[in-house]
Amino acid sequence: MANKSRVIVALDCSNALEVAEKVADYVYAFKVNYPLVLKEGTEIITKLSEFGEVIADFKIADVPHISSAISRCAFEAGAGAVIAHAFVGSDSLRAVVGVAREYGGEVYAVCELSSEGGKEFMMPVAEKLVEVAVKADCDGIVAPATRVERISALKNTAKSLGRSIKVLSPGVGAQGGKAREALKAGADYIIAGRSIYTGDPVKNIRNLLEELKGLD
Amino acid sequence: MANKSRVIVALDCSNALEVAEKVADYVYAFKVNYPLVLKEGTEIITKLSEFGEVIADFKIADVPHISSAISRCAFEAGAGAVIAHAFVGSDSLRAVVGVAREYGGEVYAVCELSSEGGKEFMMPVAEKLVEVAVKADCDGIVAPATRVERISALKNTAKSLGRSIKVLSPGVGAQGGKAREALKAGADYIIAGRSIYTGDPVKNIRNLLEELKGLD
Repeated sequence: MANKSRVIVALDCSNALEVAEKVADYVYAFKVNYPLVLKEGTEIITKLSEFGEVIADFKIADVPHISSAISRCAFEAGAGAVIAHAFVGSDSLRAVVGVAREYGGEVYAVCELSSEGGKEFMMPVAEKLVEVAVKADCDGIVAPATRVERISALKNTAKSLGRSIKVLSPGVGAQGGKAREALKAGADYIIAGRSIYTGDPVKNIRNLLEELKGLD
Repeated sequence: MANKSRVIVALDCSNALEVAEKVADYVYAFKVNYPLVLKEGTEIITKLSEFGEVIADFKIADVPHISSAISRCAFEAGAGAVIAHAFVGSDSLRAVVGVAREYGGEVYAVCELSSEGGKEFMMPVAEKLVEVAVKADCDGIVAPATRVERISALKNTAKSLGRSIKVLSPGVGAQGGKAREALKAGADYIIAGRSIYTGDPVKNIRNLLEELKGLD
């Protein structure tokens, strides 16, 4: 990484390349999701990777041979990491990690979504999902900035298993999560989308970095 | 639908259009997944829809605003249905159903994956996932042909809630599931992929339909 930023920008916008070029110096990585990639093709990952690391947030949640194939699409296009769901079980996660290793890429396992629905079925087993992610040799987990106490809990679960894994935390900004609180709770990187790319991206990310000063 | 077939063909192959054209008269619908769509673009859904109904098996599993956007991509391209995960919670499923209704499309909720990993976290809550799917007004659920007793159990759960929903059942063929047993257990449609498109697709599907004779 070119800098010490702890901000990942979710490029869920139609002008993703333009935003990426503007904020490249201020971010740890870019995150892309299906709506953008389905519209622009996987070439958008290749193009974005010229401005920084790209995390393909494909929330992979399929049977192992399909999960492998999806991961391969992302890494072939130039992604540095993929996000996969732990809820679908160990075999899918292991398959994704296997593909990632071929490309020197990383895998982050979603253990609890930042949405309200994330409380229904994921939250009650999130600690177990962390265990599955650690055992599958994932590089990190995804835990919600909208519920910062869950970030601490899940990070501690990983530590108790003897692994210090990276925590990515979405839900900052438009979803209501507070960046500073998420980092203080143990997130390594926070993910913000609409609050960065809506309006003036450079001004927005500078304001966010200002807000985070003193935490590094 | 042009026929009474209860077979959905999963086109997880590079020659999807060719296979679709050959087997169109023998299938209820086609199912496409991300590896194909990421490679060919969403135009492949449009092209396939000329041969029959297309189910976009995107296993949508995101926060509501992203789940909506993914569904919209599928329906805009001409899909007649999407598959979404129920474990991510009611809000995401409701968002997907809302988009589907704009297009007169259908939503099927995955309640238990056909893989071994599907037993770890999904199976223990699968009956509750059916309840979430029914309450979100989904048109059907996805239950594994690899464990036919689960098809009956999940179909019965829906019935006990006063809703007779359609059950799609993947895992037939290469994954070990038996088509006839899945239909007898309550599946409305079985999903087969590799066992159809590997080799001679027409011969394969005719053999499968022969095997299913007397069940309609």
